[in-house]
Amino acid sequence: MAKKIDHIGIAVKSLEASLPLYTEHLKLKLLGIEEVESEGVKVAFLKVGESKIELLEPLNNESPIAKFIEKKGEGIHHIALGVDDIKNRVKEIKEKGLRMINDEPKSGAGGAQIAFMHPKSTGGVLYELCEKPQKEEQ
Amino acid sequence: MAKKIDHIGIAVKSLEASLPLYTEHLKLKLLGIEEVESEGVKVAFLKVGESKIELLEPLNNESPIAKFIEKKGEGIHHIALGVDDIKNRVKEIKEKGLRMINDEPKSGAGGAQIAFMHPKSTGGVLYELCEKPQKEEQ
Repeated sequence: MAKKIDHIGIAVKSLEASLPLYTEHLKLKLLGIEEVESEGVKVAFLKVGESKIELLEPLNNESPIAKFIEKKGEGIHHIALGVDDIKNRVKEIKEKGLRMINDEPKSGAGGAQIAFMHPKSTGGVLYELCEKPQKEEQ
Repeated sequence: MAKKIDHIGIAVKSLEASLPLYTEHLKLKLLGIEEVESEGVKVAFLKVGESKIELLEPLNNESPIAKFIEKKGEGIHHIALGVDDIKNRVKEIKEKGLRMINDEPKSGAGGAQIAFMHPKSTGGVLYELCEKPQKEEQ
């Protein structure tokens, strides 16, 4: 089902303050920066092999990322698993009695369809299922 | 510097209770289970593309993983980045003024050489640098 780690989402207070660790010290390639208004975040994408690290900076105090940082501090927010046919994957997971945060896939960054699983069903880990448009492979 | 996400370490109370989510529901392949006495953990390795998910069950109450679970609950513990020539990578990082938990690489699971960076230097994320023996590629 899960083909790869599509990305790891990391909550940061400031992209500007956080990026040098990734670009200068860990020498990762910055693929781009995008605002995702619906989630209230500005996201920087960094390439690591077939996966990405996504740094998530809150755009405002109502952003889920702002609330996460307030409660737990900066750090790892979620793991996104790349899947095919996300609609049916979500259906299967629900049929197995696991809880989803998103009962139907919704639009995420980069034209992806995404759905979050509920951490109560995954041992405290916030897993996102993520289906990318066919052409995307960076 | 970092070539790929080698693995993500996830703290769990019990491998037995946690594995069905990964093998049955997310349909990941279980590569093996290993006890790492020096770290006080039993580890289950699951394949996801070029990366692995490592579930870490504490072997005793003194294990760093037992303490992590007591403090924060089950969840994501660390991200391991695959690197070459770890000895020089650690040296470079220290020269840049970043803190390492391990000033020299040490032996980890599967014959790897590993060194943890200090979360105070990485925005709250526990990053492990990890160099695998040449032959390992699952």
